[in-house]
Order: sequence, then C-alpha cells, then structure tokens
Amino acid sequence: MGDFMNIGIVGMGLIGGTYAKSLRKYPYKVYGIDIKEETITYALENNIVDYGTIDPKSVLKNLDVIFLCLYPKDTIKFIQKYIPCFKKDAIIADAVGVKRKLVDYFEMYKNDDVEFVYTHPIAGREKIGIEYSDEAIFHNANYVITPTKYNNAESLNLIETLARQMGFKNITRISDVEHDDIIAFTSQLTHAIAISLVNSDNGMYDTSLFIGDSYKDLTRIAMINENLWTELFLQNKDFLSKRIAAFEEKLDEFKEALDKNDSEKLKKIMIHSTQKRGEIK
Amino acid sequence: MGDFMNIGIVGMGLIGGTYAKSLRKYPYKVYGIDIKEETITYALENNIVDYGTIDPKSVLKNLDVIFLCLYPKDTIKFIQKYIPCFKKDAIIADAVGVKRKLVDYFEMYKNDDVEFVYTHPIAGREKIGIEYSDEAIFHNANYVITPTKYNNAESLNLIETLARQMGFKNITRISDVEHDDIIAFTSQLTHAIAISLVNSDNGMYDTSLFIGDSYKDLTRIAMINENLWTELFLQNKDFLSKRIAAFEEKLDEFKEALDKNDSEKLKKIMIHSTQKRGEIK
Repeated sequence: MGDFMNIGIVGMGLIGGTYAKSLRKYPYKVYGIDIKEETITYALENNIVDYGTIDPKSVLKNLDVIFLCLYPKDTIKFIQKYIPCFKKDAIIADAVGVKRKLVDYFEMYKNDDVEFVYTHPIAGREKIGIEYSDEAIFHNANYVITPTKYNNAESLNLIETLARQMGFKNITRISDVEHDDIIAFTSQLTHAIAISLVNSDNGMYDTSLFIGDSYKDLTRIAMINENLWTELFLQNKDFLSKRIAAFEEKLDEFKEALDKNDSEKLKKIMIHSTQKRGEIK
Repeated sequence: MGDFMNIGIVGMGLIGGTYAKSLRKYPYKVYGIDIKEETITYALENNIVDYGTIDPKSVLKNLDVIFLCLYPKDTIKFIQKYIPCFKKDAIIADAVGVKRKLVDYFEMYKNDDVEFVYTHPIAGREKIGIEYSDEAIFHNANYVITPTKYNNAESLNLIETLARQMGFKNITRISDVEHDDIIAFTSQLTHAIAISLVNSDNGMYDTSLFIGDSYKDLTRIAMINENLWTELFLQNKDFLSKRIAAFEEKLDEFKEALDKNDSEKLKKIMIHSTQKRGEIK
C-alpha cells in the first residue's frame, strides 16, 4: 500500500476526532462517518476531515483503512450491517478497550475480503464529543495491537505505522487474553477504585475544602461514561473480579498492619510501593 | 501586631521552603532554621530566607511567628527542647497532617507564654527537600486551622491572613476531631489505596506499556515518604480504619454487581460517582 490512502473514521467522538486530527497532517484523505449530522458539520467546519457523511454505504467502497471508534456493541452492530460494503482487502481497526469478545465474534468474518486488526489506543479524557478531541491525547500514549492468526504482517505493520504517525509512543503486540488481563488491572481496576472512593464519601463534610491534589487525581475518572463502561466492565468481568480481589488483599494487609500498630510492616509496604511505582515510566 | 514581623520557619524541606518562598514577597523578615547546614546554605544562596541558622536558640527570642514544618514526632521534640526559648506571646503554628495527638500533647503548655495555632496546609509533592519547594504548591490549595479553647481570635486571624498571603484559597476552621475524620478520607485513604494498587501488580507484564493517565494519576502518591506517613497513619488509625472499611464496602458493591451481570446497578453506581465527583471544585 502506498503513501496515499483513503482512511475512514467511524464514530467522530473524542477518540474518532482525535484520530482524524492526528492523521490530517499526513498525505491521507480522511473521511469522517457519524450518525449525527451536526457532528459531521462540526468536523467539516473545523477542517478535521476531508470529507464527512452520515451514510457509510456511500463511502466505504473507497476506504483502504477504517478506524472504528465506537462502543463495543456498536462496533459489532456496524460490522454486521456494513460488512458487504467494504472495499476488497480493506483493513478495519477497532478501538475497543476489551478484546476477547470482539475477536471471538468477528471470527465469523474470517473468509470475507477484509482484515480486522484489533487495537486499543490507551488514551482518553473525562469528556465526550468531538469538541474535546485533541492530538495531545495520543502524544506519547500507549497503543496495543492484539494480532490473530488471520492477520498479515503487512497489515499489522501498516496499523503500527499509522499509530506511530498519530503520536503513540509504545506500540505493543500481545494476545487478546493477555491484553484483557493486564487492562483489567491498569485501566478497569483504577476506574472501579475511583468510583468506589467517591461513593464512599459519607457527605458529613464539605469535601472540597479538605482535599489536595491526591484526592483530585485519584477521583477524576470517577466522572465516567456509564454506558460505555458498563459494557467494558461486563465483557471483562472474570479478569476484573480477580484484580479487585488482589487489590483488596493488599489493602487488607495494610489495614491489618495499621490495626496492629505494626510500623515496620507499614514501612515495608510503602518502601515496596515507592520502588514499584518508581519503575513506571 | 504590625505589618512587620519576624517569621521563623523550622524545618526547611519541601513545605518549609515553600512557606519561606511564599512569605518573602511580604515585608517580613524570614528566618530559616534546619538541622542541616547544607540546607541553610542552600536557602541563603538561593535567597529563600533573610537569615538562616542551625542553632534555634540563637534566634527564637526574635521571632513573632514560628511555622514548624516538621514530622509529627519531631514537632513534639522541638517544642519539648525549645519551649523556654521562645519570645513572649510568640505564635507557633505546626504543619502536622493529623491533629488530635498533637493538640492533646501540647495542652501541657497552656500556661506558657506562647500560643499554639494548629494548622494543616493540604499541599505537597511526591518529592522531598528544599530544592523542590515552590510557591505554586500552595496556590489555591486548602488550609485548615483547628482552633482550641486556648486560642485568641487575633492569633487565629493572623495565621489565616498569612495563609491567604501564601496563596491558600479555602481556609477552614474545624475541630481537631473533625479534621482527623475528614482527612482520613481525603488524604490518608487515597494514599492507602494508591499504595495497595501498586503493590497488587503481579508483575506478569511490563505495566508501563499498558497504562494511560488514569493509572499514572492514581498511583503517583504510591511514591511515599514511609517514615512520615507511618507516623500519620498510626496517629489516625481509628478514623482511617473506618474509612478503609467504608471504601471496601463500596468496592464490594461494585464487584457484586459485576459478578451478577447487573448492568443497571453498575450504571447507577457510575451515575452516582459522576454526580458526586462533579460537585468537587
């Protein structure tokens, strides 16, 4: 595939808009597809895409690469509806935060003339909508590709190149199972914690007057899109449930040391966390 | 007390250094006191204080207001050692993150010619030392004063004025018991969570490759000064223990909804956290 390509982005929200903005500076023609007319109007007026439409059928035949920036269930629905409309050998990359269910489901299309590349841009904001899309969101962020036996090396490499062009720093290939396991820890557990922390506030005080940066930082993601995250949590409940249990074990260990006045144990726990967190780049 | 005052800062670390930098732009003479000669040299060379010494006795008699920026135990030790050396009617403000033990302990000095004003600047960084002191740390941060029956209104007002001059935004007066209760939630629980989250990483993956901002934000405070925080945690273990239990109850509620595939309950939990977090300014 040459330098010039027609790239489609389906779902022009925060992530889709950021895909478009990040790719516009390269010699691609960027097509925006959304169900909302006003989103397409916004994308065109703000020069975020070259072409925009609410009618996928009218453009899918032109597109070499399609990034689906949709909720998990909508990703499946979109493919179910439009699978006959893609260009031959089109590469379709999703952006779903859990992978196993999607990979399993799309196996049924293994003989179709398209190729699915499963990807997870680990980036976001506590805002939704194209208005908040911003190239900075992807800058130096992590990107994960979960290859399957049906993938061609060139297709994986092409998506990796595009991810790098969009500003992602680490692009890692890992199986869908491994992806869902580690994401249950790094992303889903953190959200479950932030939500539970905020909800455990008993409301006896005006909390805003007694917080520092730590509370703000830990709870920012408690403002969450409940529809998207219910899908993500439930699709990964086995791994997430285990991660919650492992976390609670560590918190109980801390609480036990506290209750026992065991200052040596508390110090050990903190020295360990300081060292482990220091390894994170 | 007039506009001009001699203000002493004992313990020229991150917080002490920030006190000094924040007060230097006002017409006060700022004295820095530390046990390390090199810290005083640094403070003088970088024009952070007007005068510096490692010999408290040589300057305490001159000081109208003294900010103690020491660990909890060192705060007590300093007062034990130097209580006879203060100027008559000097105001001594601590910066200890839990208050009940300190307030109880210092009651013994109620007939001395000094006045203790108990304060908690809710601000910090995951770094220690004067090199990291920075006026920005206090800008728009919260400051809490826990008055006792021995306080004069003028002394409390003076400390409040100084806190405002240093850049703090909300300055709240609350009892020592209430302070320790809410701080167990906003500060201590958040640190216990961050520590436990990092320590629950099973090390099976290169975590750095799979994190987004949420993991980084939630775990930054897992890099922690274990000596200081062991003191803080243990001095507030009753309240902290209850806050950990209340948090775990909410996390268990989340886990139960997850295990039961209860998407309506999960959504309710998230709508609640989104609304509650939205109220935080």
